[in-house]
Amino acid sequence: MKIINLDQISSKPMLPEVKAAMIDAINKDYHNPSSQHKSGEAAAEALEKARSSVAELINAAMTKEVVFNSGGTESVNHAIKGVAMANAEKGKHIVTSNIEHNAVIRSLKRLQSMGYKMTSVSVNEKGRVNPQEVADAITDETILVSIMHSNNETGTIQPIEEIAKITRERKVIFHTDAVDSVGMVPIDVQKMGVDLMSFAANTFYGPTGVGGLYIRRGTRIFPLLDGGVQEGNKRAGTENLLGIIGMGTAAAITRQNLDKWTAHCLSLKNQLLKELPNYIDHYLINTHAEHSLPNMVSMSVQFIEGESVMLMLDDEDIAVSTRSACATGSLRASHVLISLGLSHADAQGTLVLSFGKDNTAEEITTFLIALKNVVTTLRDISPLYQKVSQG
Amino acid sequence: MKIINLDQISSKPMLPEVKAAMIDAINKDYHNPSSQHKSGEAAAEALEKARSSVAELINAAMTKEVVFNSGGTESVNHAIKGVAMANAEKGKHIVTSNIEHNAVIRSLKRLQSMGYKMTSVSVNEKGRVNPQEVADAITDETILVSIMHSNNETGTIQPIEEIAKITRERKVIFHTDAVDSVGMVPIDVQKMGVDLMSFAANTFYGPTGVGGLYIRRGTRIFPLLDGGVQEGNKRAGTENLLGIIGMGTAAAITRQNLDKWTAHCLSLKNQLLKELPNYIDHYLINTHAEHSLPNMVSMSVQFIEGESVMLMLDDEDIAVSTRSACATGSLRASHVLISLGLSHADAQGTLVLSFGKDNTAEEITTFLIALKNVVTTLRDISPLYQKVSQG
Repeated sequence: MKIINLDQISSKPMLPEVKAAMIDAINKDYHNPSSQHKSGEAAAEALEKARSSVAELINAAMTKEVVFNSGGTESVNHAIKGVAMANAEKGKHIVTSNIEHNAVIRSLKRLQSMGYKMTSVSVNEKGRVNPQEVADAITDETILVSIMHSNNETGTIQPIEEIAKITRERKVIFHTDAVDSVGMVPIDVQKMGVDLMSFAANTFYGPTGVGGLYIRRGTRIFPLLDGGVQEGNKRAGTENLLGIIGMGTAAAITRQNLDKWTAHCLSLKNQLLKELPNYIDHYLINTHAEHSLPNMVSMSVQFIEGESVMLMLDDEDIAVSTRSACATGSLRASHVLISLGLSHADAQGTLVLSFGKDNTAEEITTFLIALKNVVTTLRDISPLYQKVSQG
Repeated sequence: MKIINLDQISSKPMLPEVKAAMIDAINKDYHNPSSQHKSGEAAAEALEKARSSVAELINAAMTKEVVFNSGGTESVNHAIKGVAMANAEKGKHIVTSNIEHNAVIRSLKRLQSMGYKMTSVSVNEKGRVNPQEVADAITDETILVSIMHSNNETGTIQPIEEIAKITRERKVIFHTDAVDSVGMVPIDVQKMGVDLMSFAANTFYGPTGVGGLYIRRGTRIFPLLDGGVQEGNKRAGTENLLGIIGMGTAAAITRQNLDKWTAHCLSLKNQLLKELPNYIDHYLINTHAEHSLPNMVSMSVQFIEGESVMLMLDDEDIAVSTRSACATGSLRASHVLISLGLSHADAQGTLVLSFGKDNTAEEITTFLIALKNVVTTLRDISPLYQKVSQG
C-alpha cells in the first residue's frame, strides 16, 4: 500500500528531473573538478552550472556567494562557528532566539563552552520574535545575530527583513537558518538583507546530504572545513558532485514551479485547518495563521500523546511526525512549543504535519478520518479526557 | 579518444556495482533514516548495512566506530579539531609531521591561532617519519599525534604501528589520515592501534563527497558538526544516504578484490620504474622503494617544469598531475618534496602518477613514449639542460 507522506519536512521524494540528472551524472564518470588537466573541465562546468541555478533560486547578487556543502547542519555550523572565530577580536556576544533548530542551539552551546556569551530572545504566543527585542539585545560586543527564517516544528516565519534592517544599522552579521524555507517560499537574499543563509537541497526535492551556505560578499567568516582550495577557499574537500548536480537541477525546476507548488500546499493546509473542527475537538494550532510556511501545520491534540497518534497513524500507512527528525529519540517536550507557552501536557500531544507538491486533497481527507478514529480510541482510555468531557 | 587516467588519486571511476547500487537507491525514494514512522526503516537498514561493509574493510571492532561524513577533509577536521576541543583541559600540544595534507596543516593552523602548540617532526630523505622523534616530541601537554598513513603526493607509507605503540604507552590520542590508503592497501585499525582514522569513498572506487572517520570506542572527541542525534551523536546532519550506499557497496567489492587490485597496480608501478631509464634520464624517484602505496609514483624530471609536462601530456590525452588536486592553483613548491630535501628546481619538475585497477601495461608504455617526447621537446629549449648535457 502506498504511504501517505504528511512528514515531508523530514523527507521529500526527489523530482524525476533530479533523479535523471543524477543518474546521468553517475554514468558520466566525471573527473575531479579541481584536477589540473582537461578531464576535470566538464566536472567544473557542471559544478558552476549548479551554483548558478542555486544562486538564482535565492537571488544572490553573485554566483560565488553560494558555497556548497553537506547540508543544512553543516551550513549552520559553518555560519555560526565561522563568524564567531573570525570576529572574536571584535567581541564574543551572539544574539539568537529560543526556538532555533538543534544545529543552531548546539553550535552556540559549543561556543559558550569556549567563552562566548549568548542572549536568546523569546517569541510571543504566536511564535514570532519581536525585532525590537533583537535590537535591545545587541551590544558593542555583539558579532552575530542568528534567527531562523521558518521554524522546523511549527512553520512560523520570522520578520527577517525587519531584523536585517537592525543588524545592518548596527553593523552586526546576520545569519538566518532558512533550511525549511528555501525552495518552499520565495527567498530573495538581497531583499531580505541577510549576510548568511543556510539551506538544504532536500527541502526542494533534491537529494539529502547536500546543501549550501549563502555568504554575502565581504562577510568576515572562517571556513569550518580547512584544507584544500575548493569553493573559493571557503569550504575545503572534494565536492559531492553528484549531490550538487541534483541540487542544481532541483533548484532550477523549483524556481520554475514555486508559485504553483506553494499555492497547492497552501490549499491543502487551508483544507486541513478548515475541516479539522469537523473531525476532532480540543486541539491547539501552533502555527502562525499568517506568517508561516504554506506546507506546515503544528497541532496539539489535547489529553493524549502525540507519539501514540503517530504510531497508530503509521499502522494506517499515514506518516506524520511529532518533532524534528533530528531530535528523534529525545523524550523531552519540544523547546519550541514550550517557548510558545504550551503546557508540557499539550506539547506532548503535538503532531507536525508537512506537505509537498504531490500530496492531494483526498490524502488530507483520509488523514482526517484516520485521525478522528485514532483520537477517539486514545481519548476513550484517557482519564484526563473523561474528566474534561464530563465537565 | 579515451583518456589515459594516470591521475587516479584525484579521481577514480566508480565501480559498476557502485553505480548500480546508487541508481537503485535513487529510484527507491528512501525516507529519512531518523524519521519516527516505518517509512524510515528501509533507509536506516541501508545505512547500517553500508556501515557494516565499511567497518569490515578496515576491521573495526565495532560497526558503530565508523562515522559517516562528507569526505576525507571533514574526517581530518573532525579528528583534529574534535580532539583538541575535547581535551583542552589536559593540554594544548599536538605532534604532527612536515608532510601532511593541507586538511591537516590548515586544521592545525586554525588551532594554533586559538592558542594550541604544535611540534612537527621531519621525515628522512626517503620520506619517512622516525617514530623515536615522535616519542621525543610528546610532552605532558600532548593530547594528539596526527601522522598520515600514506602521503598524497609520494605514496610513501609511514610506520603507523610503531608510532601507535608509542602513543598508547604515553596515553596520547593518535589520528592517522589514511585517505589515500584505505581501499588501496590492507588496513586493520585494530592491528595498527590507531584511535582515529580518516578515509574517503572515492579512493576505493566509490563516489566523491562521502567518507568516514573511524573513532575507537572511548576516544574523547567532540563533534565538528553539532545539531541532531545522527551517527551516534558524533556527526549531526541528515545523511547523504545515496553516497553512503555507494560507499558501502564500494567497500564490500573492494574488500573482495583488494589483493588482486593491489597486485595489478604494483605490477604497473614496477613496470614503470623498471622501464623509465630506457626512456628518460636525469630524474629522481620521490616514492619510497619499499614502504609505499602500490599505485603511486612521484618522479621529478630535472631541468624542466612538471606543469609543462602535465599540460603537454594532457594534449596527448594522458592525465597526470604535479600535485594534490586540493592544492590546484598554488604556485609554491610542494612542502612534501621540500621536506624530502629536494631543491625547489627539482620539486618544480615533479609528476605524480597514480594508477587504478583499470589501467593497463599498454597505457604505461604509451605514457612512457609520450613522456620521452615531451621531455625531449622541453629539454631542447632548457638552457639548464643544455649546460648539463654538455658536461
